Amino acid sequence: MISKPYLLFLGDAKDELAIKTAAGINYWRPEWCIGQMSLPNAKSSLGINEISLEEAVKRGAKTFVLGVVNAGGKMPEGWIDIIVKAISLGLNIASGMHSRLSSFDEISKAAIKHGVKLHDLRYNNIEFDTGKGLKRTGKRLLTVGTDCSVGKKYTALAVEKAMLEKNMKVSFKATGQTGVLIAENGIAIDAIVSDFISGAVEWLSPDNDRDHWDIIEGQGSLFHPSFAGVSLGLLHGSQPDAFIVCHEPTRTQMRGVEAALPSIGDVIEQTVQCGKLTNKNIRCIGIALNTSNMKNNKSDIKKEISSQYQLPCIDPITDNLDPFIDLLEKIND
Amino acid sequence: MISKPYLLFLGDAKDELAIKTAAGINYWRPEWCIGQMSLPNAKSSLGINEISLEEAVKRGAKTFVLGVVNAGGKMPEGWIDIIVKAISLGLNIASGMHSRLSSFDEISKAAIKHGVKLHDLRYNNIEFDTGKGLKRTGKRLLTVGTDCSVGKKYTALAVEKAMLEKNMKVSFKATGQTGVLIAENGIAIDAIVSDFISGAVEWLSPDNDRDHWDIIEGQGSLFHPSFAGVSLGLLHGSQPDAFIVCHEPTRTQMRGVEAALPSIGDVIEQTVQCGKLTNKNIRCIGIALNTSNMKNNKSDIKKEISSQYQLPCIDPITDNLDPFIDLLEKIND
Repeated sequence: MISKPYLLFLGDAKDELAIKTAAGINYWRPEWCIGQMSLPNAKSSLGINEISLEEAVKRGAKTFVLGVVNAGGKMPEGWIDIIVKAISLGLNIASGMHSRLSSFDEISKAAIKHGVKLHDLRYNNIEFDTGKGLKRTGKRLLTVGTDCSVGKKYTALAVEKAMLEKNMKVSFKATGQTGVLIAENGIAIDAIVSDFISGAVEWLSPDNDRDHWDIIEGQGSLFHPSFAGVSLGLLHGSQPDAFIVCHEPTRTQMRGVEAALPSIGDVIEQTVQCGKLTNKNIRCIGIALNTSNMKNNKSDIKKEISSQYQLPCIDPITDNLDPFIDLLEKIND
Repeated sequence: MISKPYLLFLGDAKDELAIKTAAGINYWRPEWCIGQMSLPNAKSSLGINEISLEEAVKRGAKTFVLGVVNAGGKMPEGWIDIIVKAISLGLNIASGMHSRLSSFDEISKAAIKHGVKLHDLRYNNIEFDTGKGLKRTGKRLLTVGTDCSVGKKYTALAVEKAMLEKNMKVSFKATGQTGVLIAENGIAIDAIVSDFISGAVEWLSPDNDRDHWDIIEGQGSLFHPSFAGVSLGLLHGSQPDAFIVCHEPTRTQMRGVEAALPSIGDVIEQTVQCGKLTNKNIRCIGIALNTSNMKNNKSDIKKEISSQYQLPCIDPITDNLDPFIDLLEKIND
């Protein structure tokens, strides 16, 4: 468990997607967030109190959370001094970077000197097996995407919330560092040694009651040239009975690379094609449209997509989730 | 560089595929191998001199190579004493296990005491980037498989050898611990943090001369529920112009799991479907049939498969490779 409340560090975030860790915690767990701290050249903000390290400590902050991500998750050099200062003020540190906090000498020494905790969200000490592909009891929903950062985690959390409100048996299963921060458990699957991707997901979502749903947070996209291997291992390990395709309609190319976006239909077809290896009954139950960047025509585009694929298409953050839940309730093995 | 010659350790290998690391080195680099050492309950042998640690040292052995693999690559407890004894006799140790040799206290202390080297073939200190998916210069061939352990490494090495004999520009690129031992470079891709699978392969096979071929060793299978994520990341990072499907016709189910084998046609179709994300000209140029376990009808089955897929089908260990090379020579970008 990480001590709360948090001061969220935004660094010099180049755009809104870069602060998705901070934004995710602030959206789903606002009561844990005391303020944000950004560098002068940051291009985005959470719209909460901008406060200094000293001010945060005065207001009772317990942990300094690195809330900004970059492809590859490497620690920018300039941050080390800031982190060491936070430690010297008595703050614990939480990081989703691939570089371990303790791998930086200054950070490691400062943490020992000031008696604070270093939380590396991408690491754990679990010894995983390789995936077995055997059918497990209980039901599973996986959120998949046309790209990275399109709403897979928000969709999974929104589905969990809606099912809890209906008193269904359900658990959100985090697979990324932000999800792990929000749920306070889970595995950052992109930090697992690649031999164990599907095995780690099998560990994360074990046998359960027949009427229990694991809602598994998806990662990347089967069509993203950087991360498709992770997405496929996650799909096979999840052996989902159902999946939701998450899509951001204003996106023009794949995040961080020069590659074209797949269509929603491409994603449905490829997910079924690959997913049937570990669950022959895999089916798409809907499309989650992230309309946060749209100004107009939200309703039209949802209707159009719904009609094209003959599936519910909603924005899970603004719309009622019954169309998804109704279809999930009909799934019996 | 690892000091030679080697004593190959077979442990209590449960079958022939379990000793594929030792068998690969002994087949491709027999001049490096002084003998084998196995435990009393071992079920397979290389057919070379069975000698003790002491005898191997007398005959000049320099390195004790753990030549047996298991799914997950974990160190069996009983081996530690044997390794420590080898070290005490002055032998260096080479291991392809996921557990680092130095992570075992007794091994680590013994190595320091006796001044020997510990080689963890699955590890390196390279800091990879995430994959970019950008087209690189030079040409690339990837060997893919219907399953694990069907001949992807042997096929790649045989193709490299045949191309070298024709004075073509060619490099074998190892992606597994045995390949790394044979080639004395490369990356064990299944030990890479999963975020960097495709990025590591991009590093392994960088820009090269337009008429140079990288022959990239495949791993696992897109249809293997344990390892398909690794296979997909490797496919995307390789961005192959051409691929060869490797198949073992006597295999009845996927190695190590309860899953059906795909057909050669399934593998061709899925490899093209997924591979076109990073190389739209990807094509299958043939089928490599591992006939080592067949007694009769080798020629008939090759003809049958060749006719079914309208592609050359040969055993690259026993047959002339011209049918493959001829097709590769026709590929121009």
